[in-house]
Amino acid sequence: MKEISGGICAPKGFWAGGIRCGIKASAKKRDVALIYCEKPCAAAGVFTTNRVKAASVLVSREHLKDGVLRAAIVNSGNANACTGEAGIAAARKMTELAAGLFDISPKQVAVASTGVIGVPLPIGVIESGMEDLKKSLSADEAGHAAALEAIMTTDIRKKEGSVEIEIDGKPVRIGGIIKGSGMIHPNMATLLCFITTDAAISPEVLDSCLRTAARRSFNRITVDGDTSTNDAVIIMANGEAGNTPITGAGPGREVFERALEEFCVRLAKATARDGEGATKLLTVSVSGAADEDTAETLAKSVASSSLVKAACFGEDANWGRILCAMGYSGAEFNPGDVEVSFVSGGEEAVVCRGGASLPFSEEDAKRILAREELEIRIKAGSGGGAAVVWGCDLTFDYVKINGSYRS
Amino acid sequence: MKEISGGICAPKGFWAGGIRCGIKASAKKRDVALIYCEKPCAAAGVFTTNRVKAASVLVSREHLKDGVLRAAIVNSGNANACTGEAGIAAARKMTELAAGLFDISPKQVAVASTGVIGVPLPIGVIESGMEDLKKSLSADEAGHAAALEAIMTTDIRKKEGSVEIEIDGKPVRIGGIIKGSGMIHPNMATLLCFITTDAAISPEVLDSCLRTAARRSFNRITVDGDTSTNDAVIIMANGEAGNTPITGAGPGREVFERALEEFCVRLAKATARDGEGATKLLTVSVSGAADEDTAETLAKSVASSSLVKAACFGEDANWGRILCAMGYSGAEFNPGDVEVSFVSGGEEAVVCRGGASLPFSEEDAKRILAREELEIRIKAGSGGGAAVVWGCDLTFDYVKINGSYRS
Repeated sequence: MKEISGGICAPKGFWAGGIRCGIKASAKKRDVALIYCEKPCAAAGVFTTNRVKAASVLVSREHLKDGVLRAAIVNSGNANACTGEAGIAAARKMTELAAGLFDISPKQVAVASTGVIGVPLPIGVIESGMEDLKKSLSADEAGHAAALEAIMTTDIRKKEGSVEIEIDGKPVRIGGIIKGSGMIHPNMATLLCFITTDAAISPEVLDSCLRTAARRSFNRITVDGDTSTNDAVIIMANGEAGNTPITGAGPGREVFERALEEFCVRLAKATARDGEGATKLLTVSVSGAADEDTAETLAKSVASSSLVKAACFGEDANWGRILCAMGYSGAEFNPGDVEVSFVSGGEEAVVCRGGASLPFSEEDAKRILAREELEIRIKAGSGGGAAVVWGCDLTFDYVKINGSYRS
Repeated sequence: MKEISGGICAPKGFWAGGIRCGIKASAKKRDVALIYCEKPCAAAGVFTTNRVKAASVLVSREHLKDGVLRAAIVNSGNANACTGEAGIAAARKMTELAAGLFDISPKQVAVASTGVIGVPLPIGVIESGMEDLKKSLSADEAGHAAALEAIMTTDIRKKEGSVEIEIDGKPVRIGGIIKGSGMIHPNMATLLCFITTDAAISPEVLDSCLRTAARRSFNRITVDGDTSTNDAVIIMANGEAGNTPITGAGPGREVFERALEEFCVRLAKATARDGEGATKLLTVSVSGAADEDTAETLAKSVASSSLVKAACFGEDANWGRILCAMGYSGAEFNPGDVEVSFVSGGEEAVVCRGGASLPFSEEDAKRILAREELEIRIKAGSGGGAAVVWGCDLTFDYVKINGSYRS
């Protein structure tokens, strides 16, 4: 898997663009994005598990039922959630507007929204922008960059990428953009992510590959424990790479599935690192658990603990909070078997063994905790279950950002 | 139920005291407390549900098996959790030291600890302090105050009280002290609380009354979603009030049970208000849910949401986050039936009805949100289930306190 340039326009046959319609308060930021493919794509999506679902989630799920898409339209600055029947109508209208640009069926258009909840979506300003939106489309890096900017809200870093793999001797490309920095918690992406690929693959296999990848990437990051109403990961595959179509098990599927998972993990880690107010990427790895689910539950509980996250921000080797978070996770383990270490920059400080304190140098621990990428490495016992979860520290800026997001 | 003075020394026959042994880093603060009763008490306790349990929790549970106590010894500044066999030995030693002062059985002594996890308890300094600790005992307000100070850690406010009720025409007193401001989350107290009463009551009935009261008080507060390793609520009843002993159902039990619940709710609310870094007491009340459990799950999810808590700190009427937190709570409800209002100082601003936005004055909402005691009032539907949960806002100071607690 090698990195290439182009983002979501790296795979053949995809166009992207983004403009400013005026949904966001800022006069300068793009707020509507469009992704378009010249031909019908196999498509799949995973969506929020929140019982309160944004209108865009309801409409996109419906449009993905037959596994075919041509385009996706996205707005930022307004979540179009808790907006009743008018919200559903507005989401449908967005798909109709995009479909109208290319004379395709609205059913072949996915829609996504992100921003403030409970405010009616100003569909009029989107409608007025449609011709400009079409003009902004390009099949190169510029179109990719405009779409990426248009889906961002409180994101600080640009989170995107594109890679190339080989299937049947043919180069196959995967590109993606992702937004999200608050309301990020395992159990569905809790973010918006759009992935394009020119692989030839059936909708059924694509759906299965996306679910596997999402489980080990987007569903293993946490910023604040809040699962959003709008989360959506949508993938479109147009077959332009010319590989033998992947329609079942086999080496082609294996290569694609592995690559997609690795790609999604990259995007997910970048999202955790860009958590609202975050100064550090935290990796919590658990091994030795009874099984993978147990390891995941333990790792998520540690990565989600406000106390652990604040201690990481404060560079305080307060490992007792790690055991405490494992203890209330609900997972089965024996506290007396636990080993904990802090790892960064090739250095490891073991601070707890057999569930109890191990003498360690505060100076070493401080140096390890001060680095921007920090791993909390946990051996939970002697079982075979392992899992990795990514998160970030809890900082003054998280409170600042979320104390005044809407007003 | 009328308020009286005296705290845990208000009920007849109880003595309390506290001294500085040097466990806390601060040279001025008391860190060991003792509560003693002249005669054997009916006693009961509820403890943390965390799988990782402090040594004091394990020892106190064992000592409470027969429902009789004479004393409780408590230290702050060290949790004596994740300290292995040495920790258990130290906790037992604390009960032996206290028992030695009065020539009673160590089995009649409860022990509790709070502070940093994973650091060996300096039992030697406690042992050297025992004679002074005994001398500090008094049966009046001064003893109560010394014990209260000695159990506090990052607490800012003193959380205590005493009340009087009447059973069989006899005055019966209940007094209590409580500590806790971080690691506070429903599912057991997540705090240390000691309650004394001179009611005559059997251990079995006392245990049942305490469980009911705890469920609706200590288990309904949340500060940060972290359930501590050390939480303990212990009640001792010595019968000195001379009421007909409460040994089963009847009017005496009803009066006592209701009073105890009301008293525990007061202590619990004071604890939520004193959450680490908190500037506001949040009350989340849910009515119209299918049943009480559903209402409680919804209310806890809202009160625990970092995004809701940060919005309350920022005085931002971001009600979408409230619906979002209800949505991921796992509880059954229809988002289209939800009504939400912000209430304080006798004013109410309804911001959401039928699950969608209701026009409201930002100015009114701002004024309501700015008050120190704020209620988020939710009607979840037309069911008969209701519950109230207490929490606090998420502030810069929470991060500051928890970024450097240990170092």
